[in-house]
Amino acid sequence: MSSSGRTGRRPGNPEVTKQAILDAARTAFGELGYERATIRAIAGRAGVDPALVHHYFGAKQSLFASAHELPFNPADLIARIAAAEPEDLGREVARLYLTVVGAPDSPVLSLIRAAATNDAAARMMREFIEDLLLRSAAKWIDAANAGLRLMLVGSHMIGVVFARSVIGIPTLVDMDVETLIEAIGPTIDRYLTDPALDDL
Amino acid sequence: MSSSGRTGRRPGNPEVTKQAILDAARTAFGELGYERATIRAIAGRAGVDPALVHHYFGAKQSLFASAHELPFNPADLIARIAAAEPEDLGREVARLYLTVVGAPDSPVLSLIRAAATNDAAARMMREFIEDLLLRSAAKWIDAANAGLRLMLVGSHMIGVVFARSVIGIPTLVDMDVETLIEAIGPTIDRYLTDPALDDL
Repeated sequence: MSSSGRTGRRPGNPEVTKQAILDAARTAFGELGYERATIRAIAGRAGVDPALVHHYFGAKQSLFASAHELPFNPADLIARIAAAEPEDLGREVARLYLTVVGAPDSPVLSLIRAAATNDAAARMMREFIEDLLLRSAAKWIDAANAGLRLMLVGSHMIGVVFARSVIGIPTLVDMDVETLIEAIGPTIDRYLTDPALDDL
Repeated sequence: MSSSGRTGRRPGNPEVTKQAILDAARTAFGELGYERATIRAIAGRAGVDPALVHHYFGAKQSLFASAHELPFNPADLIARIAAAEPEDLGREVARLYLTVVGAPDSPVLSLIRAAATNDAAARMMREFIEDLLLRSAAKWIDAANAGLRLMLVGSHMIGVVFARSVIGIPTLVDMDVETLIEAIGPTIDRYLTDPALDDL
C-alpha cells in the first residue's frame, strides 16, 4: 500500500500514464470484478498515486467507462435522465439505450457478449450495473421498490438491445428508432412511476 | 432427393434412428440456420425418409426443440398462451418465460449464450424466433402490428432472462417469481393489446 505519490511512477508523458491507468483498470475489472477493483488497487497496478487516477478519470464508474471505451459517462447519462421532463422520462431512457448505450456499434455489445459466456465478465457487468442503478440512479426515483423498478427497466432495455443488435431480429433492426422509442417509452414510464409497483 | 423410404437407412432400433435424426437436426440447424435446415435436408443427413422425421418429431419447430432438448414444445406453449383468459394473458406469458423457457436450468440459456458470441448461432436463433413469433404466434394476435408487438414482448422477456439467469442480477434472482410475474404481466398486456401500438 503506497502512502503517497512519491512511491509511484513518474513518467514524463501524461498520455503514457493515462494509458497505463486504463490498461490496469481494464485488467483489474476483468480479474477482480467491478467491486473489488478499487481505485487504489488500479493505481497500484499502474504504479501511480490513487489521486492521479481520480484526477484523470474521476469516479470509478467513469473510469470503468473510459477503460472499456464506452461512448458515454454514466454520471452524465443519469443526469440527463434525471433532468428529463416527467412526460418525456420513458422515451428519454429508451432513446439513450437505443442510440447511445446499446447502439449497433456500441462497445457495450462486447461487454454483453463477454458476460454471456464468461463468469468473470458476467460478474463485472453485474456489479457495474448494480453500482450504477442501485447506488446512483436509485437516488432520483421517488417511489417504493426503486431497485426493482430500475432492474425491470434495465433488463427490458438490455433485451431490446440484445434482440436488435446482437441477435439481429429484422422486425427490430428495420424499425425506425423513433417508432421503437414511442412503443417502449410508456413501459419505462410504468416501471418507474406506476404506484401499483409500490406494493409488490 | 430420395423419393421414398426404400432408399433410407433401416436400422432395427427406433431409438437409434431417433438419435440419428436429432444429431443430424442439431448439426444442420447449426450449420445452415433454422430456415435452410429443411426436414428433407435433415432426413437426408440422417439417412431416413422425411416422413419418418415428421412421424417421430412433428413439425420443424418441434424437431428444433427436441434437438436442443428444450423443456417445451413450441406449439404447446403457443396453445397455452392462446387459451389464457384475457385478464391473465400477460401474466401467463411472463410465467412461461420465467418458469419454463428461461428457467435458470433451461437449455435456452445455452442458446442465448451461443447466439451472443457466434454468428451462426445468432442466425439460427433469429430464424427460429421469427418462425415461432411471426408465423405461429402472430396468428392469434387480434391487433395491428402483431409482429412488432410480439418482438417487443420477446425482447423484454429475453432481457429479463438474460439479466436474471445469465448475468445473475441479485435484485431479480432473489425476487419471488410470482412477484416478478405481477410486475411484468401488465407490460406484456400493453404490448399485446394496447390500441396505441396500432398506429406506429
